Amino acid sequence: MGVLRRTSRDIRSDSRLDVLHAVLSAGETTRNELTQTTGLSPATVATVVGDLIGEGIVVETKVTAGRIGRPTATLAMNAARGRVVGVDVAETYIRAVVFDAALNQLAHAQVARDEHVLDPDSVVEGIGRAVELVLAEGDVRRDEVLGVGVSLPGLVQGPNTVSVVVPNWTWHEVELDRLRERVGMPLVIDNPLKAMATAELWLGRGRYVSSLATINLGTGVGAGVVLERRILRGATNSAGEWGHSLLVLDGRRCRCGRHGCVEAYVGVPGIQQTLREIDPGHALVRLEAQSDFIAALARAADSAEPDSAVDETIARTAYYLGSALADLVAVVNPEVVVLTGWTTWALGDKLLPATRRHLQEQAPGWSARDLLLEISTVEGNSVATGVATTALERYLADVGLLTTQIPIAL
Amino acid sequence: MGVLRRTSRDIRSDSRLDVLHAVLSAGETTRNELTQTTGLSPATVATVVGDLIGEGIVVETKVTAGRIGRPTATLAMNAARGRVVGVDVAETYIRAVVFDAALNQLAHAQVARDEHVLDPDSVVEGIGRAVELVLAEGDVRRDEVLGVGVSLPGLVQGPNTVSVVVPNWTWHEVELDRLRERVGMPLVIDNPLKAMATAELWLGRGRYVSSLATINLGTGVGAGVVLERRILRGATNSAGEWGHSLLVLDGRRCRCGRHGCVEAYVGVPGIQQTLREIDPGHALVRLEAQSDFIAALARAADSAEPDSAVDETIARTAYYLGSALADLVAVVNPEVVVLTGWTTWALGDKLLPATRRHLQEQAPGWSARDLLLEISTVEGNSVATGVATTALERYLADVGLLTTQIPIAL
Repeated sequence: MGVLRRTSRDIRSDSRLDVLHAVLSAGETTRNELTQTTGLSPATVATVVGDLIGEGIVVETKVTAGRIGRPTATLAMNAARGRVVGVDVAETYIRAVVFDAALNQLAHAQVARDEHVLDPDSVVEGIGRAVELVLAEGDVRRDEVLGVGVSLPGLVQGPNTVSVVVPNWTWHEVELDRLRERVGMPLVIDNPLKAMATAELWLGRGRYVSSLATINLGTGVGAGVVLERRILRGATNSAGEWGHSLLVLDGRRCRCGRHGCVEAYVGVPGIQQTLREIDPGHALVRLEAQSDFIAALARAADSAEPDSAVDETIARTAYYLGSALADLVAVVNPEVVVLTGWTTWALGDKLLPATRRHLQEQAPGWSARDLLLEISTVEGNSVATGVATTALERYLADVGLLTTQIPIAL
Repeated sequence: MGVLRRTSRDIRSDSRLDVLHAVLSAGETTRNELTQTTGLSPATVATVVGDLIGEGIVVETKVTAGRIGRPTATLAMNAARGRVVGVDVAETYIRAVVFDAALNQLAHAQVARDEHVLDPDSVVEGIGRAVELVLAEGDVRRDEVLGVGVSLPGLVQGPNTVSVVVPNWTWHEVELDRLRERVGMPLVIDNPLKAMATAELWLGRGRYVSSLATINLGTGVGAGVVLERRILRGATNSAGEWGHSLLVLDGRRCRCGRHGCVEAYVGVPGIQQTLREIDPGHALVRLEAQSDFIAALARAADSAEPDSAVDETIARTAYYLGSALADLVAVVNPEVVVLTGWTTWALGDKLLPATRRHLQEQAPGWSARDLLLEISTVEGNSVATGVATTALERYLADVGLLTTQIPIAL
C-alpha cells in the first residue's frame, strides 16, 4: 500500500462529512447551530451547506423570520433524495434493509440461508432475492436507489485484488462480477466489522469522539476500530479481527482452526461451552439453535429461581470478555468501547457491570481510566445500516461531495 | 479528546515532512529526485525546499552545471544547523545521545541507575548529569542545542495532564517542572514505545510504508504502532501496550501485577523462566544480570556443543512471540512488523525463522499473507534516537515548518 496523501480536496470533504454528521444527528438544525456543533467557521458552513443543498442532499425545511437580522432557515437531510439498501450476509440468513437518504429505515426483508451451502452462486442468488424483496416491501423503484451495500464476512483485499475468505468459502473476482450483475444497481461491498463501525461513526457514539472500538457479540465476535474518525482497515482490510486474537494460548479449539481465540470463549458456542464445563447435564446445554440458547440463558438469569450454573456462566463470560477487551484497550487505547450485536441485545445488561470491572482491573496503566464501556445506541442490524451508509457515502463521492475512501466499489 | 481537524497548514506541513524524510534517507539528493521519491509536484518541491533552505534546515551542497538547462543543485540536511539530544531513561541506566541536525550520532554518555531507587528527584538529577556528560563528550555548547528529548517509561497523558506512571514510580507536574529546570534547554518528553516508532518512521522502514508495528524486545516488551505514517498514541498516550496484553489467561504473573501478559513470556525474565521450566538446574538459570543471561543464551545457541534446553527455550520463545505477534496483526493488520531492542540485537536472528512461521500460521485470514517480519535497520538505542528526532520535530514546529503533533513539550 502506498502512502496516503491528504489534499485540500480532502479537507473540503472532511468539512462536508462533519456537516452531514451534524445534520443527521440533529434531525433539524440551522447554519448557526452547525457552526457551533462542528467548530467550522460560519463562512465554511455556509459554503458546505450550499454544496449539499445544491446536490439535493440537504434541504431547507422552513424559514423563520426573526425580529432583527436575516430570517433563519431550518436544515434537514433530504430524505426524498433517494433510497439506499444495506445487506447483511450472515451465516443463517441474508437480511436486506432499505433506508431513505436521511438513513431512516423504511422496510426490511430476510431470506434464510443454509449455513452448510457454501457455493457463491447460491449466496449471490440469495442476496439478489433479499434485495428484490425489500424493494417490494418498501415500495421502492430501482431507479430511486442511490446505492446498495453488501456486507460479506471475511472480505479482504490486496493492492489490486479483493476476495471473500471464510473457511471453506472463497470468492474471487468472478463471483463478485456475478454479484454485480445480479444486483444491477451501484454496489459497494465491505466486511461486517467495518460496516458496524461505520454505523457507529455516522449514527452512534462515533459522532462525538475521535476514537472508539465497536465490539460485535454474536456467533462470531470481532471489533471495528475507529481512529481519528476513520475506520481502521489495515493492509488487507483485516484490521479488527480481535475475535481471533488469543485469550488462552493452546486453549479451546476455535472454528477458525486456531486454539484459544477470544471467539471460542465469548462467541455464542463458546458461552454454551462454558455452561457445559460448569454443568454438563444442564438443560440449556442441549439447545441446538444458538438464538434459543441465548434467549433461554437471558430468561434463566432473570428468573426468580436462582440457577447457579447460569450465574456462573455469565460471570465467567464477563471475565473472558473483560480480559479480552483489556487487551484491545492495551493496544489501541480508544476513548470508548461500544458493544453491539445480537448477544449484546439479549445479554449485554447482564454482562456489562462485571465486564467493566474486569476491564478496568486488567487494562495496563491509565489506558482504561477514563474509558467508557457502553451498549450501542444504534438499534437494529447495525451491519446492514453501516453498509447502507457506505453505499450512501459512495454515492456522495460519485457526485463529487466526498473523497472518503470507499472500500470496494464494484 | 476532541476531534482532530486537518487544515491547509497541515498539508503544507505534511509536504515538508515528506521532503525532510526523503532528504534524510537519501543523504544527498536533488529537487528532481525529490519529485520522484515524494510524488509531490515540482512546484511544491521547489516551494518546500525553499522553505527548508530559508530556515537553514536543508542546504545546497554543490551546484553542477549541465550541458543543457539550468544547473542542478545537490541538497542535503544542514548538519551544522544545531544539535539535538535524546535521553533514554531505562531501568538500570540513563543513556544520552547527541546528534547533529542531520541526525548523525556525535557522542553518547551513560549514567547507571539503581532500579530500586525510585524517587523522581534522583531520576531528574541522573537525566541532568547524563545530558551534561554527553554535551562534554561531544564538545557541544548548550546554545547549539535545538532541543532535548527525554523518554520516560510509562508516560501517559490526559486532556490537560501528563504523568509518568510505572509501578511504584509516579510523577506529576511538579516533578516535570523540576526536570525542565534541571535540563534548562527546550524539552520534549515521550514514552519509549512512541520514541522507538518515531525512529523507525524517520530513519527505518517507516520511510517506505504506510503502516507498521515496531516491537521492542528487552526486559520489558511493547509495540509502537504507525498508521498512515503517524504514531498511534491513543486516548491517553498508552496505545501499543501489547506487552501487557494477554498471551495466557491466568498464566504467569507479570511484574505489572496481571497474569499471563506477553511480557511475562517474551521479556528477558520470561525467557529465563522458560529455561527454568525446561531445566531447573541449568547453569544459565542462575545468572542474575539479564544482559549476562541473554548473551550467554546466544553463545550457547551458537556453540558447537548442542544444548537441548537452550534450543527448546529459543523454540518456545519463538512460539510465544509468534503467537503474540499474530494477535497484534489480527487487530492492527500492519504492512510490516519490525523487531528492535537489545534482545533483538542478541537473539533476533535465532528467533526470526520460527517466529515468522508461527505468526503466519496463527494470524487470521489474509492478515499476514504479505506481511514482512524483519529486524530493524535503525542501529543503536532507537529510543534515544527517536526521542531526539521528536525534539528536532518540536524545533521545526517552533520555527513554523511543521504542525506535527508533538506529544509533551515542556
